[in-house]
Amino acid sequence: MSAAGAPAGRTPETATCIPGRIGVVGLGLIGGSFARAWHEAGFEVFAWNRTRDILDLARIDVVDGELTDDVLPTCELVVLTTYPEHSVQWLRDRAHLVSPGALVIDACGVKRTVCDQCWEIAAGRPWTFVGAHPMAGTQHSGYARSRADMFQGAPMVLCPSPDLKDLDRLELLSRLVGLLRPVGFGRFSVTTPEEHDRLIAHTSQLAHVVSNAYVKSPAAQEHRGYSAGSWRDLTRVADLNAPMWTELFLENRDNLVAELELVIGHLSEYRDALQDADAERLERLLQEGTDLKRRADLPHPKEA
Amino acid sequence: MSAAGAPAGRTPETATCIPGRIGVVGLGLIGGSFARAWHEAGFEVFAWNRTRDILDLARIDVVDGELTDDVLPTCELVVLTTYPEHSVQWLRDRAHLVSPGALVIDACGVKRTVCDQCWEIAAGRPWTFVGAHPMAGTQHSGYARSRADMFQGAPMVLCPSPDLKDLDRLELLSRLVGLLRPVGFGRFSVTTPEEHDRLIAHTSQLAHVVSNAYVKSPAAQEHRGYSAGSWRDLTRVADLNAPMWTELFLENRDNLVAELELVIGHLSEYRDALQDADAERLERLLQEGTDLKRRADLPHPKEA
Repeated sequence: MSAAGAPAGRTPETATCIPGRIGVVGLGLIGGSFARAWHEAGFEVFAWNRTRDILDLARIDVVDGELTDDVLPTCELVVLTTYPEHSVQWLRDRAHLVSPGALVIDACGVKRTVCDQCWEIAAGRPWTFVGAHPMAGTQHSGYARSRADMFQGAPMVLCPSPDLKDLDRLELLSRLVGLLRPVGFGRFSVTTPEEHDRLIAHTSQLAHVVSNAYVKSPAAQEHRGYSAGSWRDLTRVADLNAPMWTELFLENRDNLVAELELVIGHLSEYRDALQDADAERLERLLQEGTDLKRRADLPHPKEA
Repeated sequence: MSAAGAPAGRTPETATCIPGRIGVVGLGLIGGSFARAWHEAGFEVFAWNRTRDILDLARIDVVDGELTDDVLPTCELVVLTTYPEHSVQWLRDRAHLVSPGALVIDACGVKRTVCDQCWEIAAGRPWTFVGAHPMAGTQHSGYARSRADMFQGAPMVLCPSPDLKDLDRLELLSRLVGLLRPVGFGRFSVTTPEEHDRLIAHTSQLAHVVSNAYVKSPAAQEHRGYSAGSWRDLTRVADLNAPMWTELFLENRDNLVAELELVIGHLSEYRDALQDADAERLERLLQEGTDLKRRADLPHPKEA
């Protein structure tokens, strides 16, 4: 139950927090997995959860105690893992309790609205908010499906405030990465909320919408015996948490609408070529997609 | 190299074929995997391939010899695994060489055109053609990627001629299943070419088109560091054999166009709800897809 073995972290001299003590807000799939991973790595983990029963369950073997208003000022890192609007409100209500020198991150799937509001809440306070989005998860939700290895090898996207000076930014990110690495992340990307939201609309949000739309064909109900890996993969994330994704989609609707327009436009091209029985055009469309998939999977120049 | 251990098969008394001797036409991903699986199960396998070098390679450890015009009359089962038009032409050219009592199947992803033509070729001859579609494969192609366990647990769809009388049909299917089971198939479905093509347009063909269209967003080229399982799954089959799928899509274009119209229509509904910022409508659309996915994954009533 001690932070022995955990990196001490570099906290300012004004700090009142205990190095390596983590506060996790929300014990769902993501929050539960964070709590498990840090617990296994030897960190002290305190948690807040809307419902009491899950918190009691987690306290048996994962969580050291409740993240009360008394404990919050002692945490070096606080992770907000509830829905976007709730995460912002939780932080707003307790902004005065966060320790000087502490770091606060979120785990929301959209970054513009969350970062704008949380940076505003943190403005003039002695702690720092960094937008964060762990690129992991499953089609399931809830604490019961959380796993200590959820983030093993996964990418983590970080959005530090543009107001930070270069050196502060570097020191902050290095300290944050030091606290996050024990959770298992395989790589860290640093970007702006705008860039994050543009890319995530394609890599994650569109995937869920397309998958959810895919199963609406009546033939989907007769797939057994006639389907293999491609149907399974295309429809895996069709089963989703509708209220959560509704909130995430609406907070990124400009980007998601643009992605939907693109894919609808491209699908219409194949349909037209098929309707015209134009083999040459159809094969060209398919070859273009094949070439783009292969190019997308080459190491990105930015990785060098 | 003998058929020892292989089921003898029930061949008519007029048969000139050797029980358990298999002819495989085409040593690509599917043909190569069939050859490997039957070879491992103790069957004698003879193969035909367009190019000599792959055949020579396969003869080292998988194939017992070349499927020449001299060997063809001795095969109990012939499997056509090349593209649809080629499979039909290969059979047409050698219809007079197939042994009395022998079974001929194909492995094409479309069944209407292939079955119609092959049943016509078989009409009045002493052997039987059954349409077949193994529901397996990977995004890769070619003999080099073939595997003996490719069909392990996979579904196999069979389309026997509607002209067969009930008892003949039952005996035929039981003999064919006996020859196919050692390859590893986990379940067999018997249906009509029309029903097969309708379902396959959804479960396989649409998946390839959607995946291929998905990667055409410019954001796909920047996915690294911002993507996880959902992007990987949605785009896995985007990398495809364009000439092969062009032929398969065109031979099933009525069904595939209908599936494309459906998914384009559904995607447009999410887009409209997003554009109107209509949370209630968006959540209802997402919940509908979630419910349909869950229902589709329940055991099908027909399975009882």
